[in-house]
Amino acid sequence: MKITFITGNAGKLREVRQILGAANIEVDSQELDIPEVQGSTREVAIAKCKRAAELLGGPCITEDTALCFQAFNGLPGPYIKYFLKELGHDGLNKMLIGFATTAAWALYGRIVPARGNGQFGWDPVFEAEDTGKTYAEMASEEKNKISHRGRALEKLERYLKGLNSS
Amino acid sequence: MKITFITGNAGKLREVRQILGAANIEVDSQELDIPEVQGSTREVAIAKCKRAAELLGGPCITEDTALCFQAFNGLPGPYIKYFLKELGHDGLNKMLIGFATTAAWALYGRIVPARGNGQFGWDPVFEAEDTGKTYAEMASEEKNKISHRGRALEKLERYLKGLNSS
Repeated sequence: MKITFITGNAGKLREVRQILGAANIEVDSQELDIPEVQGSTREVAIAKCKRAAELLGGPCITEDTALCFQAFNGLPGPYIKYFLKELGHDGLNKMLIGFATTAAWALYGRIVPARGNGQFGWDPVFEAEDTGKTYAEMASEEKNKISHRGRALEKLERYLKGLNSS
Repeated sequence: MKITFITGNAGKLREVRQILGAANIEVDSQELDIPEVQGSTREVAIAKCKRAAELLGGPCITEDTALCFQAFNGLPGPYIKYFLKELGHDGLNKMLIGFATTAAWALYGRIVPARGNGQFGWDPVFEAEDTGKTYAEMASEEKNKISHRGRALEKLERYLKGLNSS
């Protein structure tokens, strides 16, 4: 089976290939310029994937990760990419100085001063619950097993297998 | 002259009528559900107005205010509405505790603990430069003279007059 992942992000493509490759799903990538709408994480994701499927004329997967701060009732959420770009890891921490909790979820964890390899997004400032490690401090297998991306792709894999058997 | 302002916000409509009414421009309003894209303030505004004009089949004005924190390099910007909704006036202040500056611009000013009538958006926490007052502490004529909305509509008025004379 082959599926097109709409992304221009090499880090995301690498992870998706690692995860779906194990299930014999081949992953192509294509970069499409799709404006993302504002809204809840779910609304943003649904609108993006629908538009991508129209443009591509076929099945594809898109991704819109969100990093939600508990102190902000879930924000920055889908806007985390802008905050990361403008404020950096240190700024994401500073935003929370006035609040009682640094809890955050992609999956659940907390915002910490950057630790580990700083090359991929907000991985260095997100410490996943019960691991004591930031995403950036984990080996890729370890991260993929517990990460938001890993879990989403696991669900996708189950869905695709269901299609084939029905 | 008559123009349609795409808004469901009574406070915004009241201000736009006050400002453009003085120039004999009649303002109708209509509520349209237009998804706002993510992006810079300018990109968000252009996409929104184009889409509104398509749906309406004629000239209209839309508005997307942004409140930009200097410490955040311009963010939350167009996402300020979500931050205001989830965090309130107090939360907007707390977000800046870790930073050296509370400077912000819609036009230029700074984020302060809420003062004045708290009914209209972020007016109570935005103190306009050189006024010593928050928007919420000003009479409407005073606010309209200096506000982001007043200035934008002044430009629109000049533009419309230019159209008529050409």
